[in-house]
Amino acid sequence: MATYIAPTLEMRFVLNELAGLDAVNTLPGYEEATPDLVDAVLEEAARLAGEVLAPLNKTGDSEGSRLIDGNVVAPAGFADAYREFVAGGWAGLSSNPEFDGQGLPGLVSTAVDEMWNAANLSFSLCPLLTTGAVEAVESHADEDLKRTYLAKMVTGEWTGTMNLTESQAGSDLAAVRTKAVPEGDHYRITGQKIFITWGDHELTENIVHLVLARLPDAPAGVKGISLFLVPKFMVNQDGSLGEHNDVHAVSLEHKLGVHASPTCVMSFGDHGGAVGYLIGEPNKGLACMFTMMNHARLGVGMQGVAIAERSLQQAVAYARDRVQGSVPGHEGRVTIIHHPDVRRMLMLMRAQTEAMRAVAYLTAAALDHSHHAPDADEKASFQTRVDLLTPVVKAWSTEVAQEVTTLGVQVHGGMGYVEETGCAQYFRDGRIITIYEGTTGIQANDLVGRKIIRDGGQGMRGLLADIEAFESQLDAAGEACVRVKAALTDGRLALARATEWLLQTYAHDAHAPGAVAVNLLMLMGTLVGGWQMGRAALVAHGKLQTNEGDARFYQSKLTTARFYAEHVMPRAAAYLAAVLAGSESIMALDDEYF
Amino acid sequence: MATYIAPTLEMRFVLNELAGLDAVNTLPGYEEATPDLVDAVLEEAARLAGEVLAPLNKTGDSEGSRLIDGNVVAPAGFADAYREFVAGGWAGLSSNPEFDGQGLPGLVSTAVDEMWNAANLSFSLCPLLTTGAVEAVESHADEDLKRTYLAKMVTGEWTGTMNLTESQAGSDLAAVRTKAVPEGDHYRITGQKIFITWGDHELTENIVHLVLARLPDAPAGVKGISLFLVPKFMVNQDGSLGEHNDVHAVSLEHKLGVHASPTCVMSFGDHGGAVGYLIGEPNKGLACMFTMMNHARLGVGMQGVAIAERSLQQAVAYARDRVQGSVPGHEGRVTIIHHPDVRRMLMLMRAQTEAMRAVAYLTAAALDHSHHAPDADEKASFQTRVDLLTPVVKAWSTEVAQEVTTLGVQVHGGMGYVEETGCAQYFRDGRIITIYEGTTGIQANDLVGRKIIRDGGQGMRGLLADIEAFESQLDAAGEACVRVKAALTDGRLALARATEWLLQTYAHDAHAPGAVAVNLLMLMGTLVGGWQMGRAALVAHGKLQTNEGDARFYQSKLTTARFYAEHVMPRAAAYLAAVLAGSESIMALDDEYF
Repeated sequence: MATYIAPTLEMRFVLNELAGLDAVNTLPGYEEATPDLVDAVLEEAARLAGEVLAPLNKTGDSEGSRLIDGNVVAPAGFADAYREFVAGGWAGLSSNPEFDGQGLPGLVSTAVDEMWNAANLSFSLCPLLTTGAVEAVESHADEDLKRTYLAKMVTGEWTGTMNLTESQAGSDLAAVRTKAVPEGDHYRITGQKIFITWGDHELTENIVHLVLARLPDAPAGVKGISLFLVPKFMVNQDGSLGEHNDVHAVSLEHKLGVHASPTCVMSFGDHGGAVGYLIGEPNKGLACMFTMMNHARLGVGMQGVAIAERSLQQAVAYARDRVQGSVPGHEGRVTIIHHPDVRRMLMLMRAQTEAMRAVAYLTAAALDHSHHAPDADEKASFQTRVDLLTPVVKAWSTEVAQEVTTLGVQVHGGMGYVEETGCAQYFRDGRIITIYEGTTGIQANDLVGRKIIRDGGQGMRGLLADIEAFESQLDAAGEACVRVKAALTDGRLALARATEWLLQTYAHDAHAPGAVAVNLLMLMGTLVGGWQMGRAALVAHGKLQTNEGDARFYQSKLTTARFYAEHVMPRAAAYLAAVLAGSESIMALDDEYF
Repeated sequence: MATYIAPTLEMRFVLNELAGLDAVNTLPGYEEATPDLVDAVLEEAARLAGEVLAPLNKTGDSEGSRLIDGNVVAPAGFADAYREFVAGGWAGLSSNPEFDGQGLPGLVSTAVDEMWNAANLSFSLCPLLTTGAVEAVESHADEDLKRTYLAKMVTGEWTGTMNLTESQAGSDLAAVRTKAVPEGDHYRITGQKIFITWGDHELTENIVHLVLARLPDAPAGVKGISLFLVPKFMVNQDGSLGEHNDVHAVSLEHKLGVHASPTCVMSFGDHGGAVGYLIGEPNKGLACMFTMMNHARLGVGMQGVAIAERSLQQAVAYARDRVQGSVPGHEGRVTIIHHPDVRRMLMLMRAQTEAMRAVAYLTAAALDHSHHAPDADEKASFQTRVDLLTPVVKAWSTEVAQEVTTLGVQVHGGMGYVEETGCAQYFRDGRIITIYEGTTGIQANDLVGRKIIRDGGQGMRGLLADIEAFESQLDAAGEACVRVKAALTDGRLALARATEWLLQTYAHDAHAPGAVAVNLLMLMGTLVGGWQMGRAALVAHGKLQTNEGDARFYQSKLTTARFYAEHVMPRAAAYLAAVLAGSESIMALDDEYF
């Protein structure tokens, strides 16, 4: 039951037919990412994910990470698996070759990351955060710091962490209190950070903490936050490790899920101050941190895809195996996959998982173009698309993943509630993803504020125009895509209306953006998911017309797209209605009267 | 954080203004259930729930029930709490006075049950199952069995269990294999049952197991199942307890939630056969079991209301306390209840909890009328309504409770994922309620098959006519209810259309009922919830017009009804669209191709 088999057929379809791996392959620096190489990478990653990481998922959940004598001890098998992960070169798959990265497109590492996350979410958090830290250090740190730390982090020999949250400063980083006092070429950091994922462990010799803190003369609020690099062990000039820095995990959270991933309270400076090095300019830490947060947001969105896929695989396996009841048209008792309502649930899981994957990969490809396109205008245009889609990939995918994992439990009936079955773990593990790296509400505020209102809806109108242009292409598929097209048109008009409403309303109702944000984001996610399902259907129709490839696979694409159009797209109208209701009924109740 | 305060103001409003406690009070046998008595009952129950049961909820979760030397040991404090529960006469609150019950209306015990479930879901499962067993014994057992067992069960001195499920027989009871062989005045039962809630414990001296089993000559399938009463300890003629019967808990499930409630694998007849007594006619066990299942289904629906209320209370408390960020119109940092998106989540929780409560109480009142109305036609008419609403109360309330408890976690941000906070327990505990006592799919099949198709839609049309008649009453409230009325009309037309589509389709598409059942049920739940919100709004409008009572309370009713109309009712159209899509895209995929 608890196996995971990476869906490489589906992944290749999305990479090649929807996300445009061929176009990414033509970008300067990505010429080596040929279809053959990518296939080989996917197959090898699938092996590691399925054979090494997936079997540790359940044992890791049961055992959990523990704090013993001040050190975090990961569950059995994690250290060996991590060594294999590093030895295979997986940590730096899409990192800069200048610092020992493999230099593959982010699009490819996105597909590979899906596998790690699906196989073992707790494990995957460690490299996810390291990659974010790598990007922040590479983008903002000085040459000295890069020389000392970057290659070790890229290869995964050392891991990285993000130290943002304090007990009074969660979504609101303006409230950060951790202090950094200059001392020679470095700073002394004192303060306590909470919710630090993989904040301590013994998988690697060293850990590189990136820490938000305030300089003595810093202005209040977010404009007074600086970013520091704080190694667990000091690094000598020759690269050897020195003494333990003044930073320690002082406790672990007892969490609903991802038990194998230690969530640490980190104490800096209990013995005089942890040595830290400034990254970037003083008081510009938030901008540096956003570099790693944007990466992490797409990464967490992928976790939504991944946990949904894992949950789906187990639900399908159970539904194929479990005999219960009878259905019209079949003799005797049947496996429950024959029951219409079980199929409905599996189709809801499947269709939405495919839609989320396609949107996430598309966004990853756009990110590659935004970094590597030869033309500045092209870069900017892709960056606009990435900016618009990032909060959607993060928030919509993680919210939909909740629906998928709970359906996964439901398909199992009573067995779903028994921990040994395994699907309850996906339900528990996945519950964090709408919260960390910015809650759904935070993502939605980012979408409506920075991504729609700020540019007067230009980026959004560009997206809507692309969808509208695609709709007419669907006519080529005739009858097969009639419903898909109709649903897409309805959804696009709904998002256009919601966007215009927002742009007309925000100036005279300050509560409107926050009040409608999540519904607008969910509407947008539903629509861009439907757009990608439509694109998949059109490709499938073409392949079927020309008798190319596996007809059943392409037929399933048409079926799934139609199901999505019939069962998921109608939600767009409900989201629109909630948007158009505005802020009044949300804000009307007395605070004291809730 | 983890306190629970029974919402008695809200409960009284629903009892008096929506569910018609006054009319129930006029029914023969219920004359003593005056408003004053009911108030006193609610206040006393609120005390026990808040002061005794609620504090054991978290400790019970951490400690769990354990199997020690073949006996189940409940968490610390549960035995004392149960004794207090029994001593207060709570176990038999609505049971027959002839067998030492208190004889209060089911409507009143429904409100009280909400409190037990909200305070401590694990604890409440024990009396819930006992009450179901009481009903089965009272309705179907012979006088001898009643004399020996019933009063002890009614008072809660002995508890009852439901032994239906076997590993191969879950939703499909036709597959039950447990055997019953006649031996003198009793039977010898052998077999293994799983998922037996509170199947063993030491809270009481004895436990009365109701067990489905097959007689040696029984026909195959559900028409060969009989119901037996199997005491844990034999009962002597004088009522004293004899030896341990041949029934034992052999293991406990390790579950996602309700850890304090032992979920037992029960073994019957390891040493020659457990002594059991036939209840009702041979081979008619399923009908007897349905007596207790219908009770339990309403009870589990109430668990949806209860866990939603508990989750809401904690989310509101946290949102009032947690300072984070700023919002337009407020100086400095604010508590998060001021953030529009947090308010949106709290309103979604609140509005739906109120709607579920109103529908559940209304159904409980209808059940009282169906049993006690002086007129046979009236009885039958109420019974039709109860039959129609029971699967909705069970399935819609428990599904909506999933949305509420996950929002409860979300409101807490990162703290929501930490078990100490408490809201994750509601999320875990509540996950079982869409599964046990018949999954959502099973309830929905019951609704479309037995409750709509079987009577050609008559019962449903009666309900729709009542809603339509109510809509015109809303005009009296003018502007205050314009949106409520419009949403209600849209929803009613949607359900009417879905119903007629089903009635026109089922005969030529055998998969259609199963394929559309859950969406139709959710549409119906959403609508009847909206109907009750509209009724509440109309009452509130009237009270505000005449300056009666607490104006803020009634104003909040208008706000919440409007929010429900704007944010929840639009989902009706999405459910309808999924119904009208029929079975095609659900059934199209090859089984092997999922």
